[in-house]
Amino acid sequence: MESFFKVKSPTEVFKIISRFSSLGEETIILEESLGRVLSRDMISSEDMPRFFRSTMDGYAVKAKDTFGAGENLPALFEIWGEVLMGQTPEMIVGEGQAVKIATGGMLPDGADGVVMVEYCHLLDGNTIEVSRAISPLENVIQPGDDLKQGAKILKQGHRLRPQDIGLMAGLGQSQVSVYKKPRVAIISTGDEIVSIDVSPRLGQIRDINRYTLGAFCRRVGAEPLYSGLCPDDFTSLKDMVEKGFSRADLVFISGGSSVGTKDLTLKIFETLPDFELLVHGISISPGKPTIIGRSGSKPLIGLPGHTVSALVVAEVFLSQLIFRLSGNTDFSYKFKSGVQAELSRNIESAGGREDYIRVKLRETGNTLIAEPVFGKSGLISTLVDADGLIRVDMNTEGLYQGDRVDVMLFNSDGGIL
Amino acid sequence: MESFFKVKSPTEVFKIISRFSSLGEETIILEESLGRVLSRDMISSEDMPRFFRSTMDGYAVKAKDTFGAGENLPALFEIWGEVLMGQTPEMIVGEGQAVKIATGGMLPDGADGVVMVEYCHLLDGNTIEVSRAISPLENVIQPGDDLKQGAKILKQGHRLRPQDIGLMAGLGQSQVSVYKKPRVAIISTGDEIVSIDVSPRLGQIRDINRYTLGAFCRRVGAEPLYSGLCPDDFTSLKDMVEKGFSRADLVFISGGSSVGTKDLTLKIFETLPDFELLVHGISISPGKPTIIGRSGSKPLIGLPGHTVSALVVAEVFLSQLIFRLSGNTDFSYKFKSGVQAELSRNIESAGGREDYIRVKLRETGNTLIAEPVFGKSGLISTLVDADGLIRVDMNTEGLYQGDRVDVMLFNSDGGIL
Repeated sequence: MESFFKVKSPTEVFKIISRFSSLGEETIILEESLGRVLSRDMISSEDMPRFFRSTMDGYAVKAKDTFGAGENLPALFEIWGEVLMGQTPEMIVGEGQAVKIATGGMLPDGADGVVMVEYCHLLDGNTIEVSRAISPLENVIQPGDDLKQGAKILKQGHRLRPQDIGLMAGLGQSQVSVYKKPRVAIISTGDEIVSIDVSPRLGQIRDINRYTLGAFCRRVGAEPLYSGLCPDDFTSLKDMVEKGFSRADLVFISGGSSVGTKDLTLKIFETLPDFELLVHGISISPGKPTIIGRSGSKPLIGLPGHTVSALVVAEVFLSQLIFRLSGNTDFSYKFKSGVQAELSRNIESAGGREDYIRVKLRETGNTLIAEPVFGKSGLISTLVDADGLIRVDMNTEGLYQGDRVDVMLFNSDGGIL
Repeated sequence: MESFFKVKSPTEVFKIISRFSSLGEETIILEESLGRVLSRDMISSEDMPRFFRSTMDGYAVKAKDTFGAGENLPALFEIWGEVLMGQTPEMIVGEGQAVKIATGGMLPDGADGVVMVEYCHLLDGNTIEVSRAISPLENVIQPGDDLKQGAKILKQGHRLRPQDIGLMAGLGQSQVSVYKKPRVAIISTGDEIVSIDVSPRLGQIRDINRYTLGAFCRRVGAEPLYSGLCPDDFTSLKDMVEKGFSRADLVFISGGSSVGTKDLTLKIFETLPDFELLVHGISISPGKPTIIGRSGSKPLIGLPGHTVSALVVAEVFLSQLIFRLSGNTDFSYKFKSGVQAELSRNIESAGGREDYIRVKLRETGNTLIAEPVFGKSGLISTLVDADGLIRVDMNTEGLYQGDRVDVMLFNSDGGIL
């Protein structure tokens, strides 16, 4: 029993999590790559654009021919043709000549700038008056302005967003190398737990954690593999853990909220090859009775049976573990993503542990108010009522009404935070 | 030309968007429901839990038998058996009797509270000493404490999070009614655009917007349907718009950044039945040349060809439109989700329009700094360098170095914001 109380601080737990390494890589098609993490630096294979492009509708000219031009002294140009979109123009622009061009069109040889159509006045079918001077390269994108060949565009460890995917499309990359998604074996234990298809007898409850933790995995970019329900006996649970372990990259066991069953989870973890116990209890509330170990390089997680505790541990710690296994190195801002709100009442907190308080948000005028949702951690409805969590630091005795607090939002991202 | 300059303010555009209604509903399995939006209120079909449950490991007793008990005057109890997990206990607890129970176990008849194991001392196999008084219902969850039968748990329009899915599992709901996902027909126009599989000739560029907008759709919970590339001629584009329109819930056309082609998009929209032009230009930068119309109840969107402009319009406005069609009514906090940062330099802004400035975030000590990423809206690399957008209000002339700004993050959610 004594070792159980050598709980680790959240900071220690984050450090332990950071020592796991990312999984292997795979190649996927570009269209399926949203939210995936690059396993290699992305280097530009060519200049982008590869030609001088107009950024305006207007006329391509030699800029120096406009020097000195103004409202009162327009410069005259001979219209020397038109650039067709998507075509390589064949004409060469000489002195005093102008070629009609649209946004995105390729500048013809000889021209070095574009006069916006607003400053061009058609005199006849053949001549325009330009009422404004332009400087060389005005309204023009040069080859390589967007990207130079050989430039590092995106770093290994970056999670792909729509614009990143667009950029790769622009370079003609129809496939991309990414880290594999972590596969999580999810096991619910407890003699009182029944499948959701079954009508529970008095004394039994349905398997909530499978669904909560499965959806959590998807939200943070992992793939849940459901091992199923397991009675609280050594042989059955050991068998299920071994099966889950062999086909997944990590294992979540939830349940066994009684002291005896918690020992069971650890005892089974200890039978796995090259096992090391890394965390046996975390100084947070709710979520203290959490086990983190490893067998070889695979993490093994024992979570509290109460859904509220299990999900708080998942949101705070396991999201980071999944990001780590996913190779995601740019999650720091994501983690901070949340809202600031004003606390509606005082909250007391015991020293020596971090408290995560469920809060509901409401707006009063322009102020966002965070209202604590109290209730036992056995009540999942408190988690459903809440919009997010606030953290009460280990070194404070509580928070006061009116304090500004950071709310970690429970987002419902269909994939990754 | 004149009507083009009757641009709408962002506030007017949001109001117009709010008038679209949600799509129909469908029934899906619970496991696939993360991020989906409830099309009906969710009512609890039963009490949860349905029995008195212990929240602690300990002994179930009649609370009044502990009254007056303390360290110096322990109360004695006869051990009257043990509650097995998942079983309906058959014993009845009488005066002076205690029944062993674990967390989650069902309270036996006659007992009305649980003494934590820490306060129970086994004297012999048959007797315990209790050193602390408990009040009735202490360490017990009552039937209906979590949810009462008939209670509204979740509202129509709510986006499902892991805990919501867990709660439905707890009630035995293996299926759920949700709004259909909006299907978006994505069309790229422009004679200069080629497929990403093709090696572009000088003057041509690859189709970036298809990938950027497709990934954006997924990110906000819509399903992209790619119509393909279209040359800038009336008949081809009309044909493609009609086909897209018939199989999708809304249409995005991007491209045609020249004045002539913009007219083309609108001209084709106007051929659709019951067409109404709602927005012809928005007073924002970048993104001004945006068209929003409807044919019947389906939105039709004409986006600027420049990826930067198209994505800014998508992030700011089309995300809201997709949420609206998805029936999502609780997005207000999501929209505000972002980070606060300190601006690294002054930004000037023209009056009469809202500016959306791309910013890169970096940390200096404990301060998050937002560094503007300048560059023409034809340069997609500026969007890739940026972590988010800041908004410069229509009524300010700019922002100053050191100002606190709200950064709308470009998240890379694999599904929904």
